[in-house]
Amino acid sequence: MSYPNYKPGLDGVIASITSISYLDTDIEQIVVRGYDLIELIQKTSYIKVAYLLIYNKLPSDAEAAAFERKLMEQADIPEDMYKMFSLMPKTMSGMDSLRTGISFLAGYEKDEYLMDTSVESNEEKALKILAQAPTIAVNSYRAIQGQPFVKPDKSLGYSENFIYMIKGSKPSEVETDTLDKILTAYIEHEMPNSTFTVRVVASTLSDIYGAIASAVASLKGPLHGGANEAAMKMFLEVMELGGPSKAESYIMDKLNRKDKIMGFGHRVYMKKYDPRAYLLKDYIPKLAHLKPDGKDLAEIYTIIANVMEREKGLFPNADYPIALLYYLIDVPIDLYTPIFLCSRTAGLVAHHIEQHANNRLFRPRVIYEGARGLHP
Amino acid sequence: MSYPNYKPGLDGVIASITSISYLDTDIEQIVVRGYDLIELIQKTSYIKVAYLLIYNKLPSDAEAAAFERKLMEQADIPEDMYKMFSLMPKTMSGMDSLRTGISFLAGYEKDEYLMDTSVESNEEKALKILAQAPTIAVNSYRAIQGQPFVKPDKSLGYSENFIYMIKGSKPSEVETDTLDKILTAYIEHEMPNSTFTVRVVASTLSDIYGAIASAVASLKGPLHGGANEAAMKMFLEVMELGGPSKAESYIMDKLNRKDKIMGFGHRVYMKKYDPRAYLLKDYIPKLAHLKPDGKDLAEIYTIIANVMEREKGLFPNADYPIALLYYLIDVPIDLYTPIFLCSRTAGLVAHHIEQHANNRLFRPRVIYEGARGLHP
Repeated sequence: MSYPNYKPGLDGVIASITSISYLDTDIEQIVVRGYDLIELIQKTSYIKVAYLLIYNKLPSDAEAAAFERKLMEQADIPEDMYKMFSLMPKTMSGMDSLRTGISFLAGYEKDEYLMDTSVESNEEKALKILAQAPTIAVNSYRAIQGQPFVKPDKSLGYSENFIYMIKGSKPSEVETDTLDKILTAYIEHEMPNSTFTVRVVASTLSDIYGAIASAVASLKGPLHGGANEAAMKMFLEVMELGGPSKAESYIMDKLNRKDKIMGFGHRVYMKKYDPRAYLLKDYIPKLAHLKPDGKDLAEIYTIIANVMEREKGLFPNADYPIALLYYLIDVPIDLYTPIFLCSRTAGLVAHHIEQHANNRLFRPRVIYEGARGLHP
Repeated sequence: MSYPNYKPGLDGVIASITSISYLDTDIEQIVVRGYDLIELIQKTSYIKVAYLLIYNKLPSDAEAAAFERKLMEQADIPEDMYKMFSLMPKTMSGMDSLRTGISFLAGYEKDEYLMDTSVESNEEKALKILAQAPTIAVNSYRAIQGQPFVKPDKSLGYSENFIYMIKGSKPSEVETDTLDKILTAYIEHEMPNSTFTVRVVASTLSDIYGAIASAVASLKGPLHGGANEAAMKMFLEVMELGGPSKAESYIMDKLNRKDKIMGFGHRVYMKKYDPRAYLLKDYIPKLAHLKPDGKDLAEIYTIIANVMEREKGLFPNADYPIALLYYLIDVPIDLYTPIFLCSRTAGLVAHHIEQHANNRLFRPRVIYEGARGLHP
C-alpha cells in the first residue's frame, strides 16, 4: 500500500524550528548563525565557530582566546577513565569507545545537575564535553591499540593539542591548520541524522551526555559519518591495484556492479556541489607533498571525482576531500569518524540547548500493517 | 510565525510503517504482533512475548523454554565488565551505568559482525543484549552502591533470575510473577520516544548496541521513562506527611501550584485509560500485604487517582501502578527505569531489526528563523 501522507525517513518533513543553521540549496550556502560556513572556514577558526554556535555571537580574538583557555583547562579526564579505557576489548571500534567514554563521563556529575535543563547548566556541561571529547576519542583508541596514553597538553591550542594527542609529538603548523579547517568544515550542518538524534533524545528532557552519546551511535552508521573512512579505503585500494592508472577502471567496475560509492551525493544537496567539498578540494594539491604517496593519491582523487561527475552527475560531499586530508596529516583511519563527532559536538550541543529552551517531546505515530485479532 | 505543515514533536506525524505494534485508541487496545497486549499479560509470559516480538510468532511452551534457556546461557558478562563497573563514580545514576554498560558490551563483537545488518546477525546480537541487559543494570547499580555483585544464576528462569540479582536472595513465587507481569506490561508500546530513537539511529545502518544505548538515554528523560520513579517518590512524600489522610490535600496543593503530576495522561491515549494501568491496578490490593506500609500506600494510590480523575479527567498510565508494584516487591527506586529499559529491549530490538530490513535514512529538514547575511 502507499500512503500519501507518509514520507519514509521523514524526507522533506520539518522536524524543528531552529536559529542554528540551514542548508540553503537555492544559493548553495550552509548558513551557520547567519554566516556562510565557507567564509567562516576561510576567515576564522574552529574555536570561534564553536563559540558562535554555543553563544550565538562571533567572538572577538580576546573572547575566543579566553574560551579556548577555558576548554583547555578542563581538557583532561579523571584517572579512572584511563583505567576504564585499559579494560576495553581489543576488538572495540573507535566510535564505540568514544560513545562509551562520553557515557561514562556523565557519571561524574550529580544526577540533579545532569538533569538540569537550564541554558546555563547545559552550556557548562556542553563545554566540558567539547573539552574532553578529543581526549576520550584519542586515548581510548590508543588504549585499544596498545599505545601509551598521550594526555592533553593544556598549554597548546585546541586543534594543536588534538593533533598532538593523535601523533604523540608536537605537530607542524600545517598539520594543526589542516585539522582546524577540517574541524570547522564538519562543525554544523542543519539536521543530519545525528543532530536529529540529539533533539529526539533531548526532548524527553534527558541529559546532554546521553544525547551526545546517542549522536555517536548515529554517526557511526555507514550512511552517515562512516563515509570518510570508506572513501579513504577506496583510495588505498586503488593504490594497491597499481595507482592512478587503475583508478578509472576501478571505479567503472564498481559502478557497473552498482556498488555504492562513498563520499558522493547528499540527500539535501542532491546533484549540486557540497560547498565544503568545493572549498577543501583545493587544499589537497597543496598538502600532497606531506606523504610519499600523496601525489598519486591526489591524482586518484581527481580521476574518481571526474568519473562520478561524468557517469552519475554526482559531486563529492565533504567526506571525500576530508578523508584524504586526514591521511595527508597522518591521522589513523580508525579516528576519522571519531574526530568528525568531536568536531560536530559544538553543533550538537547547540541543538541540545535549543531543544531544551523550547521543548516538545518527539512522539510520532506509525502505520500498522501487521496482523490483527489474534488470541493467545 | 506559525507554519501549517510543521507539527512540533512530530505530533500525529507518521514516522514508520510497522508490523510490530499499534495503539488502537478507538478500541483502547495495545496491539502487539496482532495480539491484545492485555491478554498476553494475563495468559502468557515475558519470555513468550519477547519471542513473539523478535520472531513474529507466539511460541509453544517448548519453544519458549528453549528460548529462555538460550538467553540464560548467555546471561553473564565478561569479567572485565565487572571491573569496569567498579571504576564507576559513586554519583552515577542507574540509567547512565546501564547505557555505559551496553555501549561497552558492543566492543566484544568484531566490528564487521557488529555492522552486519542482516536479520540473522541482528537477531543474534539482540538475544545477547536481551540476555545481558539485566545483569548490566543490576550489577552496575550494585557496584555504585558498594554492594557485592550477584552474578546471574543460569539455572533460574529469566524473570526469577532478574529479581534474584536485585534482591541477592532467592525470590518468592509472587515476587517473580509480579516482576514478570511488569516486564510484560512494559515490553512494547508502538512508537514512544525511545523506540523512535532506535529507528532513527538504526537508519544510518549503525549497530544494535548503539541503538539500544541511545534508547537508554531517551528513556532516562522525565517526560518518558522517569515517570515511574517520580510517582513512587510522590507516594512516599505523602507517607512522610502523615499517610492517606494527607493525600487529597497534597495532590490538590500540587494541582493548584500547576505542578506536573507524573504517572497520569499520555499523548496518544489523551483522556482515555491506559489499558495496562487498568489491568495492573488490581494487583495492588492483592500485594499490599507484602510490605508493612503497603496498605497505606495502596490507599494513597487510590485517593490520588480519584482526585486526578475528578479534577483533571486524567487517568493513570502504566507507570503509576508499576511504581507501587515495584516497591511492594522490594525493587530499589533507582532501578525502576533501568528495569523498564531491560523489559522494553525486546520491543526495541524488534524495531531495530525491522528498520534494517526496509531502511530509509531519517533526515528531516528545519525551518530556519535565525539571522542571515552576516560576515566575519
